[in-house]
Amino acid sequence: MKKLIYPSQSEIDKIIVRPSEGGSEIDRKVREIIRRVKDEGDEALRSFSERFDGTSPVSLRVDEAEVKNASAGIPEDLKKAVRSAAASIEAFHAAGFAEPVVTETLLGVRCWSRDTAIEKVGLYVPCGTAPLFSTVLMLAIPARLAGCREVIMCTPPGADGTINPLILYAASVSGVSAVFSVGGAQAIAAMAYGTESVPSVFKIFGPGNRYVTRAKELVQLDGVTIDMPAGPSELMVIADESANPAFIAADLLSQAEHGTDSQVFMLTSDDTLIDRVEKEIEHQLPLLERKDIAVETLRNSSLILLADIDQCISVSNRYAPEHLIIATRDPNKDSSGVINAGSVFLGHYSSESAGDYMSGPNHTLPTGGHARSLSGISVTSFMKKIFFQEVTDSGILKIGPDTEILARAEMLTGHANAISVRLKCLRDEEN
Amino acid sequence: MKKLIYPSQSEIDKIIVRPSEGGSEIDRKVREIIRRVKDEGDEALRSFSERFDGTSPVSLRVDEAEVKNASAGIPEDLKKAVRSAAASIEAFHAAGFAEPVVTETLLGVRCWSRDTAIEKVGLYVPCGTAPLFSTVLMLAIPARLAGCREVIMCTPPGADGTINPLILYAASVSGVSAVFSVGGAQAIAAMAYGTESVPSVFKIFGPGNRYVTRAKELVQLDGVTIDMPAGPSELMVIADESANPAFIAADLLSQAEHGTDSQVFMLTSDDTLIDRVEKEIEHQLPLLERKDIAVETLRNSSLILLADIDQCISVSNRYAPEHLIIATRDPNKDSSGVINAGSVFLGHYSSESAGDYMSGPNHTLPTGGHARSLSGISVTSFMKKIFFQEVTDSGILKIGPDTEILARAEMLTGHANAISVRLKCLRDEEN
Repeated sequence: MKKLIYPSQSEIDKIIVRPSEGGSEIDRKVREIIRRVKDEGDEALRSFSERFDGTSPVSLRVDEAEVKNASAGIPEDLKKAVRSAAASIEAFHAAGFAEPVVTETLLGVRCWSRDTAIEKVGLYVPCGTAPLFSTVLMLAIPARLAGCREVIMCTPPGADGTINPLILYAASVSGVSAVFSVGGAQAIAAMAYGTESVPSVFKIFGPGNRYVTRAKELVQLDGVTIDMPAGPSELMVIADESANPAFIAADLLSQAEHGTDSQVFMLTSDDTLIDRVEKEIEHQLPLLERKDIAVETLRNSSLILLADIDQCISVSNRYAPEHLIIATRDPNKDSSGVINAGSVFLGHYSSESAGDYMSGPNHTLPTGGHARSLSGISVTSFMKKIFFQEVTDSGILKIGPDTEILARAEMLTGHANAISVRLKCLRDEEN
Repeated sequence: MKKLIYPSQSEIDKIIVRPSEGGSEIDRKVREIIRRVKDEGDEALRSFSERFDGTSPVSLRVDEAEVKNASAGIPEDLKKAVRSAAASIEAFHAAGFAEPVVTETLLGVRCWSRDTAIEKVGLYVPCGTAPLFSTVLMLAIPARLAGCREVIMCTPPGADGTINPLILYAASVSGVSAVFSVGGAQAIAAMAYGTESVPSVFKIFGPGNRYVTRAKELVQLDGVTIDMPAGPSELMVIADESANPAFIAADLLSQAEHGTDSQVFMLTSDDTLIDRVEKEIEHQLPLLERKDIAVETLRNSSLILLADIDQCISVSNRYAPEHLIIATRDPNKDSSGVINAGSVFLGHYSSESAGDYMSGPNHTLPTGGHARSLSGISVTSFMKKIFFQEVTDSGILKIGPDTEILARAEMLTGHANAISVRLKCLRDEEN
């Protein structure tokens, strides 16, 4: 890891740059995959599965019995842990509903908006080096709470042609309607345009590698909505002298093991902490199964000493991290200045990995600086607002004349006329 | 307008297709505009302004004094109408705030989410055949209510090089920070990447023609967030025997005058209404200043007789109109089945044009079928959620062991380790 001691503003700006992506080659390949899925449907899905997953599933749709039977081989304590996680996730997400507020903006003019479930949604769950069944819970539970009628899921088969049973168990616990054995960019294309087996959906959710992310961005150009362009994972830790270097090292390593394109930072106001954290990283790193990945990530990553916690918060706001741990004496106070972050973990025991599974808020979060403008997944991600308004005869008499003036000023006489015919009718009735 | 009497399902599906767009040529041109703005900055903006607006503004940023002085030439009743509209819009949008709800998902695990303003936003306001100052109000008022620090606006200059004073007046009433005299796809590129004069923003809002919409979609590929791909305007009217044919004709014409690519429909259960509405359209059409545009739109549009109001609602849900008027005897009851629509107008006096200006809900709405998955603009469009969680020592003792199990099942031992170091520390303290 790089170490920076009281760097200047421009040195900071250089160091908080995200690892760059090999864009144009990926773009070309993904466009070709999308084109083939659009043209050839299931046949293209099978051919890509053979090429990328080393298997060609007989049926793209996973048999319902297989989903139900997945639990048989899973140890009881693991199933219990999955159900506990599901309960916390449900508890947090269920609190996100807002009752519609009716506003009488003027007498006779009542307006409100109604959150309404998106009918058909598609979830993408990666399963490469790790079977991310927690992502199934994080996507399918809010979809179910929102009331989506059709919640389909695509996930790649292993080399033996089957889907990881933990992923199927999580799907069955959280209410997925149908599971398809399709991965990668081709899964995104299938859910966007539909094939013989896979139905098209109105919005696609879920993380993935750069091919999957590019596919989501490209189908968006054809009018399919996506949750967000989810990229490599990121963590920033802000720590003062109260922090425990072993905890910080473990948190940095936990994000570093995600993928070689992840990025982690510690920002601190304590001039002894960097060396202590570095020592702990050296100590803990060899214990990790995925240490080779973590070592790569640490090359993009830095430990930075800054003047005070306010400056740490300000650098964090500029970077807009996916995950932000505030390991300081008064994390609640310090967090008041946070304006750009996906998910914030307050205090020494709020480990980021607790949030990945168990505490409740969603772990599907904006990366790549998107936390400046995008939210993590919540129940509202699976809904859209519909506006309603009810103008009575007395209401139109009140707002009609101003509406006519404004419409004419925009040179839209047809708009003005729609008011005039109503006002005339009411005035005729009066006489 | 086409007339369909009790059409079959497949006839309906054919008729509710949206007019197609001349995609690839627009795409090519817009990519070139974006490339030049990225490379050449202000110089490209001036050159495009000369080509497309027939003028080259001396200063791209509109002088603050000019914004303030805009009100001088505007009639008092028009200014009063603008302020009334602003008041209704503010009243409705201010009701959209949700207080953060803290959920204790487990003892010692507190979680909440905080809606936080997007720091820098850019508004695009078209000003082609009509000066759409109402769009300024509809975008800038929720941006101000959300608490965005920087709210910039781009709008094209007229051939005389100045900005329409009504647009400037609306900007000053609703709290825009800076106005730039730039239109078209180049304005979107300027706000996405920044130029010497125009600062870059984190999210871009606003309607526009196909070039503007394509530019918004393309800058999204570079990570800039947009409100939605806003396309040509649409209206569906659902009417029963209680409806007034003059009102319906006026409403259809008011949307038809927007642009030749707009589309309007009436769905009815009353077998006498189609002829009566048609007669009213013939009668009212010649009165419109923009009748040539309306005539074109009516070619893409239909009056459809269906079995009952339920079937009308079902066809409307399949089309997912931007605007839906329910002109029936019991519009509240009939609207309960609406699941795909941007904004719904209930009853005979809820004219769509009242909603365009005065009633309160936003008029920036999803078109092109996007109402299946997207919402109209609200205060939350200018904010993002940040999740927070606070796990205490007793909390981690509770959720730690399950988290370790789940992390190991995902083969993420680094994630498990971040819990283990904390549990070990707490257990050591106990002994």
